[in-house]
Amino acid sequence: MTGGTTDGGLNAADAPSVSKADVAAALRRGAELEKEIAAAPSRFRVLTGDRPTGRLHLGHYFGTLRGRVELQDRGVDTLVLIADYQVLTDRDVAEHLTERVEDLVLDYLAAGLDPERTTIFAHSAVPALNQLLLPFLSLVSVSELRRNPTVKDEIAHSRQSSVSGLMFTYPVHQAADILFCKADLVPVGQDQLPHLEVTRTVARRFNDRYGQVFPQPDALLSSAPLLLGTDGTKMSKSRGNALTLAATADETAALIKGAKTDADRRITYEPDRRPEVSSLVLLAALCQGRDPVQVAAEIGDGGGAALKRTVTEAVNDHLAPLRARRTELAKDRARIRKVLRAGNEKAGAIAEETLDEVRSAMGTSY
Amino acid sequence: MTGGTTDGGLNAADAPSVSKADVAAALRRGAELEKEIAAAPSRFRVLTGDRPTGRLHLGHYFGTLRGRVELQDRGVDTLVLIADYQVLTDRDVAEHLTERVEDLVLDYLAAGLDPERTTIFAHSAVPALNQLLLPFLSLVSVSELRRNPTVKDEIAHSRQSSVSGLMFTYPVHQAADILFCKADLVPVGQDQLPHLEVTRTVARRFNDRYGQVFPQPDALLSSAPLLLGTDGTKMSKSRGNALTLAATADETAALIKGAKTDADRRITYEPDRRPEVSSLVLLAALCQGRDPVQVAAEIGDGGGAALKRTVTEAVNDHLAPLRARRTELAKDRARIRKVLRAGNEKAGAIAEETLDEVRSAMGTSY
Repeated sequence: MTGGTTDGGLNAADAPSVSKADVAAALRRGAELEKEIAAAPSRFRVLTGDRPTGRLHLGHYFGTLRGRVELQDRGVDTLVLIADYQVLTDRDVAEHLTERVEDLVLDYLAAGLDPERTTIFAHSAVPALNQLLLPFLSLVSVSELRRNPTVKDEIAHSRQSSVSGLMFTYPVHQAADILFCKADLVPVGQDQLPHLEVTRTVARRFNDRYGQVFPQPDALLSSAPLLLGTDGTKMSKSRGNALTLAATADETAALIKGAKTDADRRITYEPDRRPEVSSLVLLAALCQGRDPVQVAAEIGDGGGAALKRTVTEAVNDHLAPLRARRTELAKDRARIRKVLRAGNEKAGAIAEETLDEVRSAMGTSY
Repeated sequence: MTGGTTDGGLNAADAPSVSKADVAAALRRGAELEKEIAAAPSRFRVLTGDRPTGRLHLGHYFGTLRGRVELQDRGVDTLVLIADYQVLTDRDVAEHLTERVEDLVLDYLAAGLDPERTTIFAHSAVPALNQLLLPFLSLVSVSELRRNPTVKDEIAHSRQSSVSGLMFTYPVHQAADILFCKADLVPVGQDQLPHLEVTRTVARRFNDRYGQVFPQPDALLSSAPLLLGTDGTKMSKSRGNALTLAATADETAALIKGAKTDADRRITYEPDRRPEVSSLVLLAALCQGRDPVQVAAEIGDGGGAALKRTVTEAVNDHLAPLRARRTELAKDRARIRKVLRAGNEKAGAIAEETLDEVRSAMGTSY
């Protein structure tokens, strides 16, 4: 969160990296922001979003989605971006984009995002947002882009030729996402702090060079609990271990029934020692709004079977109203498209306004 | 011009490079195209453009501008792009963009581009064009971008940290310039053949992956004569050795009077042995529409002074009507801006139409 350049040019010295100090600073700033939001929620605008890779699961729900609904309900101006251009290298997704995007909107609405208060929109529908990529790319050097952890990872684990130009420039596209609407707050996980730092750098350099246009957004570090998939690995659609919002109660029961536990009949909440069992306990606790230690104590010596019954009931109970709404909403795909179109238009108007300011600052208002 | 990928993915094997064979192929194809254009000029659309770095000089005029006017006058649909986003790393230019862009439009109109027939527009004004950069970036790998000769040069001569993201992705932005209007023809110098090859690759991969949308444009290799600056080096605004279209007759005379020649009083046209003298002879010949060998023979033993008198008269005579038009046009800056706005709108409409096709092909017409 520190470091800076005053000349507005390319400067390798203030390139992003995540340190413990960065995380601690973000957490401290988060606590302050919490108070400010509580005092005047409507003064804040938040930008969040997802890549439309498929149906949302409980990891998404408890990690980010529920938090968005809360921010919306508290009165924060909320924009949710569907990053449909950031899935193009995933063949399977790219071939079913319309469906994937509509499914995502369905999940959003079912979970409680209200299109009257929250703007849901897609990258591909907002040219004025995407145009910001161009001036922003002039403010970032290739060596800075190479230091992006995701790109470094991909180059290390795979080959440079497998990194597309789109992946390489992703943090700058993300800066356009956040800055087009002058968002103050961006909910992120710790691993995304470097991306947000690129956005802050772009905003600072733009302002230094062309005059004050953009705020430097703050990270809202999510305290997302770590939910494992039913096989004990990371919850992920592609692994078939994910409890999705869209699943039926029976499908959910079947998946939980097959979940990995351990041989110890006494159920406890010890995430480090017993990750699979603890993740299930946590899931039940989150659904019931209770303390996981208490949930575990209540199951006591019931073993895996009792644990799974508790989790199944907790998940299905908690999701029942959401799923009922989703089933109802899914009957009317035209309405889903209408919601998205309205959000696209709203985001488009915001983007046009910002782009006009940018043009004026840059001297390109011909 | 050869090589290809059928899977529409990233493929290092068909990366661009300029070989003698490429140039020969482009020249052969150019001769064929010449016949096709003569037969049905209105079937062709050409995309050309300039970075708005300052006033155009005679190198630009005889190298490209005159050719554009000819294409327009033959009935080819002509679009001329002002690449105002591609000068942002040039501080001096970036700080006077409005003026630089208006000066460029002035030069265009003075030289004979007719806004009724030719669309003159600026990058910054056409969001739907710029948006194409996003899907196109997904079709090109970082290692392909690194092979761009301009980027390689910059990295070799300077540092990677001085290469901006904008410069790095420039060939893909150029693909968006050319493909947004589905241009068939792109006038280029030999050194730009690799850039055009990136455009052809992007068009091919997009079509392979999403269905036929884009034509693969052809290069129209310019037979631009090499005109040196008055100091015998490359003609360039920043060196103060350039004869600009906007200069007065007196300024032109003074600059030519100080031009470098040699001690041999006998004037000949021998570009290899006597580059400075020959460049002046060529300039007079181009202005008079004559053979440079004849022009030299006519001056005979008159030496540098006679040569310079001839060149000054030839240049000032040739440019007189252009300069008169320019002076007249310069009185009405509002009209210049109106021409640009009309061009921006026309380009915008073309870009929106193409973007709609792209959205439909990609399944993102929500």
